[in-house]
Amino acid sequence: MKAFEIVQGSTGLDGLRRVERSKPAPAPGQVLVRIRAASLNYRDLAVASGKYFSGPLARNTIPLSDGAGEVEAVGEGVVAFRAGDRVVATFTQGSPPAALGSPLDGTLTEYAVFREDGLLPIPGDLSFEEAATLPCAGVTAWNGLTEGRVLRPGDVVLTLGTGGVSILALQLAKIAGARVLITSSSDEKLERAKALGADVTINYRRSPEWEKNVLEATGGHGADQVVELGGAGTLPHSYEAVAHGGEIALIGVLTPPEGNLSPHPLMRKNATLRGIFVGGKHLFEGLNRAIVVNRMKPVVDKVFDFDAAPEAFRYLESARHFGKLVIRI
Amino acid sequence: MKAFEIVQGSTGLDGLRRVERSKPAPAPGQVLVRIRAASLNYRDLAVASGKYFSGPLARNTIPLSDGAGEVEAVGEGVVAFRAGDRVVATFTQGSPPAALGSPLDGTLTEYAVFREDGLLPIPGDLSFEEAATLPCAGVTAWNGLTEGRVLRPGDVVLTLGTGGVSILALQLAKIAGARVLITSSSDEKLERAKALGADVTINYRRSPEWEKNVLEATGGHGADQVVELGGAGTLPHSYEAVAHGGEIALIGVLTPPEGNLSPHPLMRKNATLRGIFVGGKHLFEGLNRAIVVNRMKPVVDKVFDFDAAPEAFRYLESARHFGKLVIRI
Amino acid sequence: MKAFEIVQGSTGLDGLRRVERSKPAPAPGQVLVRIRAASLNYRDLAVASGKYFSGPLARNTIPLSDGAGEVEAVGEGVVAFRAGDRVVATFTQGSPPAALGSPLDGTLTEYAVFREDGLLPIPGDLSFEEAATLPCAGVTAWNGLTEGRVLRPGDVVLTLGTGGVSILALQLAKIAGARVLITSSSDEKLERAKALGADVTINYRRSPEWEKNVLEATGGHGADQVVELGGAGTLPHSYEAVAHGGEIALIGVLTPPEGNLSPHPLMRKNATLRGIFVGGKHLFEGLNRAIVVNRMKPVVDKVFDFDAAPEAFRYLESARHFGKLVIRI
Amino acid sequence: MKAFEIVQGSTGLDGLRRVERSKPAPAPGQVLVRIRAASLNYRDLAVASGKYFSGPLARNTIPLSDGAGEVEAVGEGVVAFRAGDRVVATFTQGSPPAALGSPLDGTLTEYAVFREDGLLPIPGDLSFEEAATLPCAGVTAWNGLTEGRVLRPGDVVLTLGTGGVSILALQLAKIAGARVLITSSSDEKLERAKALGADVTINYRRSPEWEKNVLEATGGHGADQVVELGGAGTLPHSYEAVAHGGEIALIGVLTPPEGNLSPHPLMRKNATLRGIFVGGKHLFEGLNRAIVVNRMKPVVDKVFDFDAAPEAFRYLESARHFGKLVIRI
Repeated sequence: MKAFEIVQGSTGLDGLRRVERSKPAPAPGQVLVRIRAASLNYRDLAVASGKYFSGPLARNTIPLSDGAGEVEAVGEGVVAFRAGDRVVATFTQGSPPAALGSPLDGTLTEYAVFREDGLLPIPGDLSFEEAATLPCAGVTAWNGLTEGRVLRPGDVVLTLGTGGVSILALQLAKIAGARVLITSSSDEKLERAKALGADVTINYRRSPEWEKNVLEATGGHGADQVVELGGAGTLPHSYEAVAHGGEIALIGVLTPPEGNLSPHPLMRKNATLRGIFVGGKHLFEGLNRAIVVNRMKPVVDKVFDFDAAPEAFRYLESARHFGKLVIRI
Repeated sequence: MKAFEIVQGSTGLDGLRRVERSKPAPAPGQVLVRIRAASLNYRDLAVASGKYFSGPLARNTIPLSDGAGEVEAVGEGVVAFRAGDRVVATFTQGSPPAALGSPLDGTLTEYAVFREDGLLPIPGDLSFEEAATLPCAGVTAWNGLTEGRVLRPGDVVLTLGTGGVSILALQLAKIAGARVLITSSSDEKLERAKALGADVTINYRRSPEWEKNVLEATGGHGADQVVELGGAGTLPHSYEAVAHGGEIALIGVLTPPEGNLSPHPLMRKNATLRGIFVGGKHLFEGLNRAIVVNRMKPVVDKVFDFDAAPEAFRYLESARHFGKLVIRI
Repeated sequence: MKAFEIVQGSTGLDGLRRVERSKPAPAPGQVLVRIRAASLNYRDLAVASGKYFSGPLARNTIPLSDGAGEVEAVGEGVVAFRAGDRVVATFTQGSPPAALGSPLDGTLTEYAVFREDGLLPIPGDLSFEEAATLPCAGVTAWNGLTEGRVLRPGDVVLTLGTGGVSILALQLAKIAGARVLITSSSDEKLERAKALGADVTINYRRSPEWEKNVLEATGGHGADQVVELGGAGTLPHSYEAVAHGGEIALIGVLTPPEGNLSPHPLMRKNATLRGIFVGGKHLFEGLNRAIVVNRMKPVVDKVFDFDAAPEAFRYLESARHFGKLVIRI
Repeated sequence: MKAFEIVQGSTGLDGLRRVERSKPAPAPGQVLVRIRAASLNYRDLAVASGKYFSGPLARNTIPLSDGAGEVEAVGEGVVAFRAGDRVVATFTQGSPPAALGSPLDGTLTEYAVFREDGLLPIPGDLSFEEAATLPCAGVTAWNGLTEGRVLRPGDVVLTLGTGGVSILALQLAKIAGARVLITSSSDEKLERAKALGADVTINYRRSPEWEKNVLEATGGHGADQVVELGGAGTLPHSYEAVAHGGEIALIGVLTPPEGNLSPHPLMRKNATLRGIFVGGKHLFEGLNRAIVVNRMKPVVDKVFDFDAAPEAFRYLESARHFGKLVIRI
């Protein structure tokens, strides 16, 4: 079967290469999936460049954590799935949990085997491409909005940028009845966000102190929930933008934070900073219910052919995307 | 000024009579409001018939707890409102809180004075009639959905009947991204509920064991949140219909419960029964934010003229309504 | 090896009989335990009498859900335990969870095998007898106090009776800094409860309307948390005894509830009734941490020899005990 | 009457001076209190030195936020108190809330008037000196332990230093059944903490990377709850010491934070940083219930005479204290 690998010790995208591997067979309790679509996250760039927190790869590894496909065969004892089922894999697999795409082999491959409990049915009538956007970015956005502080209809949600997690957070926050503010450096992307339901758009290039826009648009109240995805230097602004009693959901990025990182503004506002790292299968199931009931379609910005995978990585690196990038396999 | 009173010791709707009272003046800290619309709740029938938990009225009392209008004048020291403001009164007033319509004089009158902290601005562009539906029924529905168990998009909400609280709960649950099931004895009312977004409708006359319909429509899962507004005999069915880990929000009704009231089904499901009695000003403010952000319009079934107030009471008693009944003043 | 069985279809304690069974061997992933102590719960009487919710036993079954002992051998692949470890079994085993003592074979036996994830280390220096009190009664009491409504130091806890769960709840509530009220029909048992830290004792035989004692002892406030273990007719009293915003943790009993079971008193108090059925491994681990840090010793009322097991069942039936009854094996 | 003032624009302790003021009289709704004891907080040093967030004082102000005393007279309409009652004032007064000691006149005076709702009865049999330790430091410690993440018996609490808030947190955490770790640069102070129940003591002078001691003492688990009171540079260590799913309660200090303040360690641990600023009257009432039920005595390190007030400020500045410093009036 065909696949891509990132070579051991890789420190950049030139470590990505197309390979042939032998097609795996499902052991007892395992499910063999014909992957149809895989999606990219910033994490995958970090892994390829050796900058992920676990360091450079210790062995050649198939990249990407997110994938959806069709069950081709099941191993002995598998009861939850059978051939032909449309499935999506969870970000981590097994116990203790390990993530696909590093340290485990990932989804940029024609075939992969998963434990029975490492798969979920594709929610509703989502396409393979749409379902592939969910395991990391979708669950992260869902975690940021539904765990920790309770989000109620009418609350103010601020989400930073127009990447995969942010656009999914925008869609989910609208489904939950929230008022959504979003930032970008591109007016065109902000227009697309508006079309998806964003109530207030802020161009942070024109308004570098964008927390002032947030406060102004909310009558001084601020954002009840901040989906903090920011690159360099956003956190100090989020500290100012968060409302009294609000929460900043802190989601990992490549860029190290900059500026005055003292969290003292949280004190007088009794506000909270909550660290987020994707989320477990239980959250994924909740996300899927929300998608089905509300007929939500994740935004797939661009679909690349399998052989164009390196191009997809570079497109993500260039940050030109809006929502998710997907590779069709 | 004109008003209606329920006479002391009244045990039925014939205790309701039209009177003239002198127009009040706002004391320091008070606000004089020209009431424009008042709405009815089952509680008002109970008060008129002497069956409310506090017993027959101890003095002649202006009925109805819910009203909206225009500020005509403010007393010394009032800073939050001024003449011309469109306002809605909170269900209870003062500290310790006492409810309008009993024991306090209510809103079925041309003019009333309120403490400054007993009023809120009418949310968004709601009409007086629409705003008048909120203080008791709206806040109750909001409490039932947003306090206690956390409601997330995709959760299953079951609401009983098509009265004021139930239809507001339906609208709010849809805003929150939930899947909504609703019961009624009338197919025509169920059609109207569907038009408001209800996902599943159940005619409990045709399906007296309607918990089976709930379980069937949810693949055996049941309802995560039940808005239990039922008349005689619904509670045993709700015990069966609630999901594992779910919550029944128990909201007061006139009719005493019937049937096997043992809550033992809650045990194996780790489910919860939560008693609800309207809710404080803080909840009303949250409800109003949700209404504004989601441009929600409460359903006003029928508007009666002031002089037709007794007819409105009788209409409510006949349970022919769908949503709220309002009297224009 | 020696064991006791309850014969298929048994409807009373005469269905309990001593048998010889062959000693099991641990399959891969399993742990063989030499059981040293087992403890009894009301549930075990219900199982023996065929009155448990699942009905009479479908096959001869070793009774009792709670047991502690020593690891004798481990199967292939087991990493968490090794021979000699002191362990206690969890109430349910496997996935989906099934309870020991029915439908699974239980702990009244010399040897039993468990899945690796169905055991925990005995907390601290508890004896086998003390550890055997925890899986059902201890976890239930912990669930009743630590899930649902948040218990804070200074809160009022009311626990009903002096059986196993109630006395464990008393001990745990004191560890959590609560003020504890307890009921019994026996002054002597109430004295023992006082010695364990109970702040207020109520003889419900002398005070059949014991909710009045609760209200009086708390200045009209009532109990923030009620551990409702009651027999016939306690629930209506608990509805009156619970405080505004309080919670009644409803725990299963044999006796069907009696009296006016309408939960309407919960409404005006915004109080909650929460169904409880033991609790998962995660709760057991939390309980064990609390025990270790606070050097808590569960109260073992009486220890019976293995051959006296039928006597232990009858002693429990007579309700003469205070705390837990244990059989040494 | 005698009092101390901090003069307008003061930038240090030489701005503190003894004055005579005229004894106030209670207006309607007010209570006149003969202050018997007042206690100091770091905040009071910041106010005197003009370094408090609100900047140098705009007018001569009586310092100290915390005081307890006896009611001498009540104004018209006061129902909750009468002459002779032993009372303690809440940190903030009125609505919107303003703090005693800045911007409002504080408690370092013979007499002061308070609104009826700005006082609480002294809990149990605490002395005036003990009660005076509660309004700022006690409520802050209580907030840090009981709001946000739910604290359960057996949880690990880490509190930093041996100042007023930290020692109160130690006492309250032990009452709640927690395992408590505490840091100090003084072995003698650590011995005193041990005598109050501290389970693990860490000398951060000898162990500058004290997070390692925390992890070691907890088998790698870390602290479920960190009471972060630290001076310069503690926050990066707390980020490492907090457990998976744990919470750092961030409490204000004079010293600006230092070191790598990036909160990224919170992400992989799903941990939370919660800003805390004292807490409302509701929390103070909860604290008082906990104190009464558990007969807790706040630790008063040293009592100064009224005329020695400047000495008390300097003693606090020198950080030689353990627990609270109080001035008897």
